[in-house]
Formats: sequence, structure tokens, C-alpha cells
Amino acid sequence: MIDFELILTNVGRHVELDAEETEYFISLLKFRRLARKALLLKEGQACRYFYYVHSGTLRAFCRDDRERESTIMFAPADWWVTDMYCFLNGRKAMMDIEALEASAVFQLSRQQFDALLSRSPKFERWFRILMQNAYTREQLRAIDNLSLPAEERYRRFVEKYPLIAAQVTQKQIASYLGITPEFLSAIRKKSKIV
Amino acid sequence: MIDFELILTNVGRHVELDAEETEYFISLLKFRRLARKALLLKEGQACRYFYYVHSGTLRAFCRDDRERESTIMFAPADWWVTDMYCFLNGRKAMMDIEALEASAVFQLSRQQFDALLSRSPKFERWFRILMQNAYTREQLRAIDNLSLPAEERYRRFVEKYPLIAAQVTQKQIASYLGITPEFLSAIRKKSKIV
Repeated sequence: MIDFELILTNVGRHVELDAEETEYFISLLKFRRLARKALLLKEGQACRYFYYVHSGTLRAFCRDDRERESTIMFAPADWWVTDMYCFLNGRKAMMDIEALEASAVFQLSRQQFDALLSRSPKFERWFRILMQNAYTREQLRAIDNLSLPAEERYRRFVEKYPLIAAQVTQKQIASYLGITPEFLSAIRKKSKIV
Repeated sequence: MIDFELILTNVGRHVELDAEETEYFISLLKFRRLARKALLLKEGQACRYFYYVHSGTLRAFCRDDRERESTIMFAPADWWVTDMYCFLNGRKAMMDIEALEASAVFQLSRQQFDALLSRSPKFERWFRILMQNAYTREQLRAIDNLSLPAEERYRRFVEKYPLIAAQVTQKQIASYLGITPEFLSAIRKKSKIV
């Protein structure tokens, strides 16, 4: 039995669906379980889905030409994640998305996403708010990255995302902040942020 | 006589407004002219408006504790810009927005923005797409910043935004890419990108 409570609570924070809309929405969702370290998306593959994290934690990352990983985002339960440019434009993915622990997602294809948005203005509203929040988060990140020293960015990351900070490795956090693991280690020693 | 053609063409790319909706939309817009170097928003001020650039080019930037400027975004004609977090949450602005040349904007207050979204699902759709594009742009920027060397990021910036690259100073581009003006100058000499 798949539990839709978390995702329906998410919708319910923004719009009120009636029984028929709820049923339609649920009918589009495909549930997938992922083992720890499983790849949901791989660079170079077609990026066909928008993913809602039902449980666990995902990490989206890309590699430079020296195979060094950069973390684009962490996605804990109740977040949406995809390679948005490639999902919207039918392009091959620029990033990998992996499960950091045993996880489960609901996936929506581009066609289903469009169908949902056409079905009721309530879904337009919900996704407008989701996209707005995602944009806001990325704008704040750009501000932090451009204007704050690494130590302060690390402090804010731990403050904003305590659960993620506790779950992922220091190497992954360093690759999200755009610094080396050695530099992060030095920062942590100096500032006594654990 | 204020010319609404550009902004109505923008709406028209995504939704089809009827005469009444068009009139309502236009009635909310407040037109403002800006001299070159004028500030539309100042850090620490209440961030009350979402701005549509009617003509000219704006630049959003913040300062670190040593007063060094970082460019958050450039906004040429037909783009929307604001300090999104502060606009949505009624907080004081974290950034300045200045006119790089004589410019003009339409502004929408938070109340007007909410009223517009409640007026017709078409506006929800339009802003969902705008927010989605803005998020996509920022996600691409995060990917570039984390995974590409500065030279490649400069090349892509010039390729993606040729008009902006031709209009703004090298110092401003460097502060957008998160590098020093000296480093950008070295890159340009080396790579012969003008």
C-alpha cells in the first residue's frame, strides 16, 4: 500500500483539491523504490521525469572534466528534484541523481506534468509556488556564494538544512559549497561547527 | 503615452488574455523611468516590488563586508527582477538594483501580484512559467559555477547573453562570474574572447 499522505499534505499547503482532482493526481504518480547508492538519473540519459522525494534523501551532482563531483542540490523527503533545463527541453541530462540512502520517489513524466497543469488551475498555482520557492532558494544560494566567505556559507548551510548536514558526508557538503574537503575540514576545526 | 506592447507580447507568448484581463493587468502596472546609475532598490530598504524591465538594463548586486560588489543578475529589457526572498517574505532587501543605463520599468507590489494571480488562472500559468524559467536559469548557473573553469564560464556567458556582455563593464562581468577583474582580464587575453 503506497502512502500518499506526505505529497497530499504538500499540495494541501497551497491549494485545496476535491476528491476527483486528488484521484486524478494520484493516478499520474508512479512510485519507485531506490536502494542506497542507486542512480535515478545518469548524465547523458534522457531526462524524462520530475521527481518528488517520498522518503530518504537524493543528491544531484555533476562532474567536471577531471571527474570531480559538484553537488547541485540535496533533496530530502518532501522536495522535488530534476535536471530542470533538460526535463523541460527534452535534452540529455547534465547531472546524476543518486539515492544517498534507501529512498522512494514519485515520478511525473513531462507529458503527465503538462496534463496535470491543464487539468485544473489549482495545479498551476501549486507548481507556480514550488517553482517560485525553488527560484528563491537558488537566488539566495547565488547571493551567499558570491558574497560570503566559505566559513559563513558552511555555517548557514548547517543552520538552514540541519537534517541534510547530519546525513551527508563532509565531502558532499564541500562539493555543494564549491570548496575542497580539506578546506571544509580546516573551517570546521577553526570554527568548531560540527 | 506608455507603450505596453513589449510586456503584452511577453504575456502573449504563454497565455491569451481577453480585453478585460488585458485592461485589468495594465491598470496594475506602475511605470517608472530611471536615469543611468539610479537605484531602484537599496539594501536594507523594504523590498516591495517585482519589476519588469521595459527598456534599458538593470543590475542586481550585493556587497560583502569589505564592500566588494557581487553581481546577482543582469536584467535587460523584457526580464523580471527583484530580491525574490525579500519580496515574498516582506523582508528588507539584501541587494541593490541599479540602472546601468537610462531605463524604464513597470512595477507590481506584492498585493498587486497576489491580486493578479487570483484574478485569472492565466496569470498563474504565466508566472508559473516565468518562475520555472528563472529557476532553470539559476540551476544552470549553479551547475556552471560548480563544474566549469572560469574561462569556460566566461565563454558561455558571452555566448548566452551577447547583448549584456556588450553593454556592461568587465568588472561587472567578473563580479557576476565570481572572479577578480584581473583574472577575467587574463582569461580574455589568453582566450582572445572579446
